[in-house]
Amino acid sequence: MKFKLAFIGFGTVGQGLAKILVEKRELLKKKYKFEYDVVAVSDIKKGSVYNENGLNLEKLLELTKQTGKIESYESGIKGLSSLEVIEKSNADIILEVTWTNIETGEPGLTHMKKALGSGKHVVTTNKGPIALAYHELMETARKNNVFLRFEGTVLSGTPALNLSLEDLAGAYVKSIRGIVNGTTNYILTQMEKGATYDESLKTAQKLGYAEADPTMDVEAWDPVAKITILANAVMEGNIKPKDVEREGITHISLEDVKKAKDEGKRIKLIAKAWRENNEVKAKVSPEKVPLTDVLAHIGGPINALTFETDVLGDVTIVGPGAGGIEAGYALLSDMLAINRYLSEM
Amino acid sequence: MKFKLAFIGFGTVGQGLAKILVEKRELLKKKYKFEYDVVAVSDIKKGSVYNENGLNLEKLLELTKQTGKIESYESGIKGLSSLEVIEKSNADIILEVTWTNIETGEPGLTHMKKALGSGKHVVTTNKGPIALAYHELMETARKNNVFLRFEGTVLSGTPALNLSLEDLAGAYVKSIRGIVNGTTNYILTQMEKGATYDESLKTAQKLGYAEADPTMDVEAWDPVAKITILANAVMEGNIKPKDVEREGITHISLEDVKKAKDEGKRIKLIAKAWRENNEVKAKVSPEKVPLTDVLAHIGGPINALTFETDVLGDVTIVGPGAGGIEAGYALLSDMLAINRYLSEM
Repeated sequence: MKFKLAFIGFGTVGQGLAKILVEKRELLKKKYKFEYDVVAVSDIKKGSVYNENGLNLEKLLELTKQTGKIESYESGIKGLSSLEVIEKSNADIILEVTWTNIETGEPGLTHMKKALGSGKHVVTTNKGPIALAYHELMETARKNNVFLRFEGTVLSGTPALNLSLEDLAGAYVKSIRGIVNGTTNYILTQMEKGATYDESLKTAQKLGYAEADPTMDVEAWDPVAKITILANAVMEGNIKPKDVEREGITHISLEDVKKAKDEGKRIKLIAKAWRENNEVKAKVSPEKVPLTDVLAHIGGPINALTFETDVLGDVTIVGPGAGGIEAGYALLSDMLAINRYLSEM
Repeated sequence: MKFKLAFIGFGTVGQGLAKILVEKRELLKKKYKFEYDVVAVSDIKKGSVYNENGLNLEKLLELTKQTGKIESYESGIKGLSSLEVIEKSNADIILEVTWTNIETGEPGLTHMKKALGSGKHVVTTNKGPIALAYHELMETARKNNVFLRFEGTVLSGTPALNLSLEDLAGAYVKSIRGIVNGTTNYILTQMEKGATYDESLKTAQKLGYAEADPTMDVEAWDPVAKITILANAVMEGNIKPKDVEREGITHISLEDVKKAKDEGKRIKLIAKAWRENNEVKAKVSPEKVPLTDVLAHIGGPINALTFETDVLGDVTIVGPGAGGIEAGYALLSDMLAINRYLSEM
């Protein structure tokens, strides 16, 4: 099938997807019968271009690289707002890749509601809206007979959600437990090697694993958003980020790490969701994980999730948890899933 | 959707699926809109019953448990051969769960060809036919516009194939590496704890992890079949089991295991497939795996596979590799996938 795509947001993740789409265009057509035209790109900083007949994605990437803007693109309608693109463009799929806000979900939440409401599929890596309004958004998608897919909101491109929602369909997920934040796992791994918290954080910032303001990661807001999504989407829970018990890693000392090591354990920031009195609960906190647990051996920026099921016992997926290309790929994998479902056999 | 199912083979795996289908009937209908009638069960030892209007699966399980036969079932046509059921019944999906023969693939291979050729979907856990004739069978499925799905041929119900073929669609798999045989991994894990090879094998047999004749496992024929399937299906290779370099674990001594341990390593029976001069190659042999590799920490009968990809780096899945319920679940997960693809959104 051929899809018309609109990028809402064109930062690291959007550009990551764009690079993959350019590089794999022929392969995607040949192997999966997936074809695309990018009809719009709208970014609050870089500008907005729309052409119902399609834009040249390579040129847009080049312009972004050289000028940081896309408004000098040679043709098309300039200056449409994100909402105008969503509501008025001829796109089939809205790629919602604006920034994450886990307090209000905005502007992503409004983008998604408008897109689904106007009969467009939404594919996103934006954790805020999915963590805050999963059930409401899915209901809107169902009513409008379109897909809302969000693989990239958890473990970036590592297929944690498609695994648990589709491959593990029919299995009852009793609990979920894992390492869902690469920054903090990198810091804790460095501390295992003897570096202090402050030194480890600095290295993480140098390598691009941590932001200048690392609060979202080290205070565990990011893993809280992710476990909320997992609890609601995979375990049919009904919780909000504020319901999740939260403890970050800022108070973890080298002493603590060494003490755990002496007990044959490793400190990991563990996100988990479980069932209690017919309700789904969730928590994020540092735990001493025994070396017999696979999760103890997930080092650096790598992430992992264990799904405890009725028919299979534990199933664990391990892979990258961040990165522009990785998150960009998550968007592609979701679009290929839509393509499979909508295509004739 | 509602499907008419025919079981060809009703051993541990067939009964494993039957138990899950009985137990989850309401859930499958409610959550996935998946409904089924079992119209036929044909097993070379237990007999054959066909009723185009459906059989009572609970009664068939009960009869099997009590008498080891199903021919005393109260109604329906008795005594049809497997091929007669495949060709003449009104089943939509043939569940091919007869025994694995990796030299000829029979009788499974003929069953699958006939089923696909007569426009019926095939869902199977039978490694032989898929290892020997993957490309030919897929071509037959395509021509007849039906599905051939075989999740349970590798890592039983752990979704290794659906993960790599669907969730990782669009990613280029450079190599595959893992532990795909539970029996040998259990034996090697026991040897780590100090038991000899013979003692470990005996314990494995007592626990039902190893057969009375353990050749298929300990001489690595089983992992050879599995890596052949992965090489051909996931990496688009074109190899046969006989092309795979094969080395079992019968010559591994306690001494070897201890020596590896002293080097900070663990001996694991590793199955791998890689690309070399535009060809896909595969090998199964014991390897000393460093403790920095997640695979070193996969103990007992658990299996794991690492897919090395272009866009995500390494993605690893860990889960059970055997078991009647686990393999039975693999069949269900494949049927739920067919249901998703054939249903309207």
